[in-house]
Amino acid sequence: MIIVMKPTSTEAELANVEKKIKNAGLKTHLSVGDDRTIVGVIGDKKIIANLEMNMMPGVEKTVRITEKYKIVSREFHPEDSVIDVAGVPVGGKHLAIMAGPCAVESVEQLEEAAEAVAKGGAQFLRGGAFKPRTSPYDFQGLAEQGLKMLRTAADHNGLKVVTEIVDKDDMDLIGEYADIYQVGARNMQNFQLLKALGKAKKPVMLKRGLSATIREWLNAAEYIAAGGNENIILCERGIRTYETFTRNTLDLSAVAAIKELSHLPIIVDPSHGTGRWEMVRPMARAAVAAGCDGLIIEVHPHPEVALSDGDQSLTPKNFNALMDEVRQFGALMGKTL
Amino acid sequence: MIIVMKPTSTEAELANVEKKIKNAGLKTHLSVGDDRTIVGVIGDKKIIANLEMNMMPGVEKTVRITEKYKIVSREFHPEDSVIDVAGVPVGGKHLAIMAGPCAVESVEQLEEAAEAVAKGGAQFLRGGAFKPRTSPYDFQGLAEQGLKMLRTAADHNGLKVVTEIVDKDDMDLIGEYADIYQVGARNMQNFQLLKALGKAKKPVMLKRGLSATIREWLNAAEYIAAGGNENIILCERGIRTYETFTRNTLDLSAVAAIKELSHLPIIVDPSHGTGRWEMVRPMARAAVAAGCDGLIIEVHPHPEVALSDGDQSLTPKNFNALMDEVRQFGALMGKTL
Amino acid sequence: MIIVMKPTSTEAELANVEKKIKNAGLKTHLSVGDDRTIVGVIGDKKIIANLEMNMMPGVEKTVRITEKYKIVSREFHPEDSVIDVAGVPVGGKHLAIMAGPCAVESVEQLEEAAEAVAKGGAQFLRGGAFKPRTSPYDFQGLAEQGLKMLRTAADHNGLKVVTEIVDKDDMDLIGEYADIYQVGARNMQNFQLLKALGKAKKPVMLKRGLSATIREWLNAAEYIAAGGNENIILCERGIRTYETFTRNTLDLSAVAAIKELSHLPIIVDPSHGTGRWEMVRPMARAAVAAGCDGLIIEVHPHPEVALSDGDQSLTPKNFNALMDEVRQFGALMGKTL
Amino acid sequence: MIIVMKPTSTEAELANVEKKIKNAGLKTHLSVGDDRTIVGVIGDKKIIANLEMNMMPGVEKTVRITEKYKIVSREFHPEDSVIDVAGVPVGGKHLAIMAGPCAVESVEQLEEAAEAVAKGGAQFLRGGAFKPRTSPYDFQGLAEQGLKMLRTAADHNGLKVVTEIVDKDDMDLIGEYADIYQVGARNMQNFQLLKALGKAKKPVMLKRGLSATIREWLNAAEYIAAGGNENIILCERGIRTYETFTRNTLDLSAVAAIKELSHLPIIVDPSHGTGRWEMVRPMARAAVAAGCDGLIIEVHPHPEVALSDGDQSLTPKNFNALMDEVRQFGALMGKTL
Repeated sequence: MIIVMKPTSTEAELANVEKKIKNAGLKTHLSVGDDRTIVGVIGDKKIIANLEMNMMPGVEKTVRITEKYKIVSREFHPEDSVIDVAGVPVGGKHLAIMAGPCAVESVEQLEEAAEAVAKGGAQFLRGGAFKPRTSPYDFQGLAEQGLKMLRTAADHNGLKVVTEIVDKDDMDLIGEYADIYQVGARNMQNFQLLKALGKAKKPVMLKRGLSATIREWLNAAEYIAAGGNENIILCERGIRTYETFTRNTLDLSAVAAIKELSHLPIIVDPSHGTGRWEMVRPMARAAVAAGCDGLIIEVHPHPEVALSDGDQSLTPKNFNALMDEVRQFGALMGKTL
Repeated sequence: MIIVMKPTSTEAELANVEKKIKNAGLKTHLSVGDDRTIVGVIGDKKIIANLEMNMMPGVEKTVRITEKYKIVSREFHPEDSVIDVAGVPVGGKHLAIMAGPCAVESVEQLEEAAEAVAKGGAQFLRGGAFKPRTSPYDFQGLAEQGLKMLRTAADHNGLKVVTEIVDKDDMDLIGEYADIYQVGARNMQNFQLLKALGKAKKPVMLKRGLSATIREWLNAAEYIAAGGNENIILCERGIRTYETFTRNTLDLSAVAAIKELSHLPIIVDPSHGTGRWEMVRPMARAAVAAGCDGLIIEVHPHPEVALSDGDQSLTPKNFNALMDEVRQFGALMGKTL
Repeated sequence: MIIVMKPTSTEAELANVEKKIKNAGLKTHLSVGDDRTIVGVIGDKKIIANLEMNMMPGVEKTVRITEKYKIVSREFHPEDSVIDVAGVPVGGKHLAIMAGPCAVESVEQLEEAAEAVAKGGAQFLRGGAFKPRTSPYDFQGLAEQGLKMLRTAADHNGLKVVTEIVDKDDMDLIGEYADIYQVGARNMQNFQLLKALGKAKKPVMLKRGLSATIREWLNAAEYIAAGGNENIILCERGIRTYETFTRNTLDLSAVAAIKELSHLPIIVDPSHGTGRWEMVRPMARAAVAAGCDGLIIEVHPHPEVALSDGDQSLTPKNFNALMDEVRQFGALMGKTL
Repeated sequence: MIIVMKPTSTEAELANVEKKIKNAGLKTHLSVGDDRTIVGVIGDKKIIANLEMNMMPGVEKTVRITEKYKIVSREFHPEDSVIDVAGVPVGGKHLAIMAGPCAVESVEQLEEAAEAVAKGGAQFLRGGAFKPRTSPYDFQGLAEQGLKMLRTAADHNGLKVVTEIVDKDDMDLIGEYADIYQVGARNMQNFQLLKALGKAKKPVMLKRGLSATIREWLNAAEYIAAGGNENIILCERGIRTYETFTRNTLDLSAVAAIKELSHLPIIVDPSHGTGRWEMVRPMARAAVAAGCDGLIIEVHPHPEVALSDGDQSLTPKNFNALMDEVRQFGALMGKTL
């Protein structure tokens, strides 16, 4: 931590600042400039992390130097992590494709969707059995019945299952049917859920919050890792901005940022990221070119009758066209399905 | 719902759109313009709410006319609601003042804080026993021990208790000690928690999410109301913007907006809203002038040693000065403590 | 400036960094921590301002300590500035009220509006003769004809004139008729216009840009001041956020921030800030309570027929009601019209 | 335009609304729902564009259906436009690469940069002779001297010149030396500059404003087109969000959006879009994969000594590596340099 003193601060104020730091078991290092004195704080990071100095008289501002996340940082683990999902690798030289409907609606819908995405080349079936919806009057999902349908349709087609968890009480139930727990954007800082998933035996895919900074996102991942579960996949799904043409603003620079800051694999969701099916294909290509480790795509056999998010779902035909391109762009990136 | 057809749409596409609407048990009303046909959808709002039309061929866009929240809307309940919190009214002609430290740290800290805020005129003691923190390595609160300290210090000073709930499993425990359940910004769309609180016997204060729209906020409140608990207090605490001088951007126009759209009382949190203690006082005055029903203020007997959020906490002396002004501005608004 | 070295940086990299700083005529001050070395840069601020260190090998990040604006800063001029606008003071113990239609439309409209706002207590007539409009096909203003109408209607009612300048070539022309040049949000960083106004003989009101930080805003004001014109009034008019219920998000914390950072007076525009006439009154009260030095309000004798921004204009009757409240809240703040 | 009446509106209010519309020479079409009446407005788009209905008693809200821009819309011109820049095509099957330093600093710097970018495959030399800087005390550019250096260095290496215009008075001067006028983000809504460029004989590259919507951007382009100059290239350069890790958030979905809404070519600026040189390469690849028509990249022979924006500049070596990838990804998109 660096403490910038006010130009008007007194020697007594500076002495108090130094005293507080020393009392905490830390050391100081002074840098006296023409109009401001700057105090560097040196010592145990955990103690520094809890040091509150801004309220001290004479202090203008403080600057924190080190990040609090550790297990998920690239500093801690320089090589890319590859997560093993029931035998399917996510990360490294692989492109993981997760596809399927937004919500599980019926056996027919799901079987049709699963067959289509498997043919297209996806390794994972996605689908929501528990849906976090803005309004209490919206369709909330089929719960365990939906999970069963997911598992069955996935098994029929050689796919793994990724599905959202919205309640820690459902952890065992979902764990019976799914291969990856998905944490949605609205729950990215639901710390109780993250702590519970830190004890889970299966991988977790953590979506970025609606307006989460990259730093907050990695700290959220650290909650899971700190609990003992280091099988974490990140998922960029668009952030909230002032632009209204798209549902969210897909932040592909987050892919490059995560690759610099962390060793975890990162998946991109161009369906929620744009909210418009016509934009899913160009954004999927761009995500692969940016260096992501996979995609999660909404595919619905009949998007015009979907119970939710029909606007952003691809038809199986469009999904196939997208996959052809993903293979080509993936090859240039040295990644294969 | 209004459906805008593309200028290039065909008669067959229009016929399909009309057919889908009629099949759902709804009626259409056509408006044929020079270059676009517009289809109005008439009928049961709940059915319309689930109608997905954007994927239909020939459709340019759809516009939803009615909001999904109902119980919390002013249309449904034209008069201002006054919430009874263990005998203390919140809403209407009253100004509710909630004050205390960010986190409960010790008996001494809390007793000192409770005495100070009671003297200043607050009716509620605030303090976190369960803290949702960005990093897993930050102080997470004293849990039940903290709740007990809160209740004791509040009782010693004739105050009611408001404290944050972060886990639905804690509902009974917190209900034993607190008078209001506070839902923090990060949990505004933790729908499982909201559903649980819909069954609670005590009032809920729902903070606006970091980047929640007013519409999403009211829908979140509707989750609680739909469960049977209509004792809801809203709390504006700043939204996330690009500005970095303040911790958040306190959106006081939300006060006026809520007064127009809803009958629920709304409290303002200038401490989190600005993140700078020097700005708490002007923003508290402004919030009262905007028409809010109360304030929640961080007060710490010794903010320079606080374990969290010291930068935004007032000393008891500054809190008293603030309360003098709040009384004067409240009087102009026809509101008393 | 503070330079944070990477944990992996070498001694040679550090030596290079120090060398570059010394070659620029500056001094360094090292602070060696457990995992990072921090280099403080000491010396002439202007040289430091142009120092680029981030690209140097071994550098993790740099932190700038001092702001670049100077003449407009409170450090430079601790007392509040009071701007004399043709005999009417803006700032200090005064509340300046600027009111009138968005655009000058006709003699009748303007005379009616001027009479109404003067009766209500405004000292300034506002109205646009040159309108910066999003679309080239929107009404662009009456130009000189509009300026004449403004001057005449203002003189008939003992008002001063504030009107927008969108082109530096119009500086003399507008200067003939107006008392304050208004720079609109879209032109806040039109540096050519700002430089020209630095040579103007009349005060300038500088609106905050759509997404300008407070720091950028003060730097824009510094452009005018650096040119020699220190008669600058700032105007908060709402910033762009994701919220769609209001046209912009009126950032009243900017009032408190400006009071801390600068000596310049600050006016608030609740009409553009909210875009909804029903919200103008509560936000005007809140602005006064936050400590602003005045308001600029859209008033139109017949808002339902206005050529632009009718949605956010008050009728004369509503303006009078607002002014009654402004006087009361102003009195509490020690400010009079 | 669609007008939604309040549920509480009266027949008299509805009659007034209809009367106003008919008086404007337009027709109405009523749609009477269970709780709201909706009025469609039919007729001349230009008249509708200026109709203000929100203030009418009984009106809840209005929805505008058609966009105001026309010449730049894809509806108006379904094929992609290819802009001829002194013999070099921009748009269609071509990838235009513009590269060079942020600011022109010296003959040596520029000659070295021009040679490097030409070798790498760029067709355009970029460089600022007039710099719009946040602070008046920052380096403002070499003006005409810089333009001459640009032209000379470009000619020596067979490149075209793109450079920023910040003042309409410089139009002729810049036109003598440059091949494309660049309008910077801060000037996107400097309508006087846009109108002047509508009369220019050379193409204009219009950068997206810091927080401009796609709709505002296309309307700004329409200003240039409406003046007679249809040789417009758009440039996405990142938008302002809450994220601080990157300088801006590069919005690559804007590429797909522009391709849907407009026939104009679109260039992407990953240097300003990210503000970090390490991220330029992945974002350049992603931009090409998203379907852009070219890139503008900051290249500096010695970024560590650059007078501005050194942090985001590539070395010639990194630029070459980037170009190798751009060629490969461009080939997949059917585009060549």
